[in-house]
Amino acid sequence: MKLNFAKLDGLLPAIIQDAQSGEVLMLGFMNQEAWEKTQKTGRVHYFSRTRQKLWCKGETSGHVQLVKEMYLDCDDDTVLIKVEQVGGATCHAGYRSCFYREIVNGDTRIVGVKVFDPKEVYGSE
Amino acid sequence: MKLNFAKLDGLLPAIIQDAQSGEVLMLGFMNQEAWEKTQKTGRVHYFSRTRQKLWCKGETSGHVQLVKEMYLDCDDDTVLIKVEQVGGATCHAGYRSCFYREIVNGDTRIVGVKVFDPKEVYGSE
Repeated sequence: MKLNFAKLDGLLPAIIQDAQSGEVLMLGFMNQEAWEKTQKTGRVHYFSRTRQKLWCKGETSGHVQLVKEMYLDCDDDTVLIKVEQVGGATCHAGYRSCFYREIVNGDTRIVGVKVFDPKEVYGSE
Repeated sequence: MKLNFAKLDGLLPAIIQDAQSGEVLMLGFMNQEAWEKTQKTGRVHYFSRTRQKLWCKGETSGHVQLVKEMYLDCDDDTVLIKVEQVGGATCHAGYRSCFYREIVNGDTRIVGVKVFDPKEVYGSE
């Protein structure tokens, strides 16, 4: 098995899906190191494009993502990871999924389930 | 609503999920034009990075993706699209999902459901 990190300059998109409900929770990017850390620890790691550094999802909030199953796509350049989302919410805004807004007629409306108050978890919004 | 195409040099990742089963089918990339065509036609369009051109999924096979619901993520740089996959298979290799291989102990094994024979649909593999 060889993952193709070349297509996005060293990054691989990772789709994160709730292992139980099937809800899509987020999309993140991994570099080689993040991929290896994920394999080794069983917790999903990413490479933050904005902060340009490795991060373990949940390192601040405690809401880590425990790897349950992993899948590779047909051209080896995207992974799908089914996880148990500790704390029940993936999004830093407190929603279960980062895709908490539906696009309707060119605009968005909030449809997601809010699980926590970001102020209580991160100290500030 | 403003999509952020800037983070990936004009491209936006689009996660495609089966509207009925919840199965994740593929990840594609859209540029502004592909996004607009998708909105206008109700069929998912992408920008092919390898061929550097706009394409409508299913233009060769007839296996188009009909948009059912669309969601935007918290930082406006990824969309999740729930579709009806005409023909029942997304992957050019004939599988229902492009994620037809599970990663187990650093290797892959085919676990996906094969719906069609690529030779019959595309004339060649």
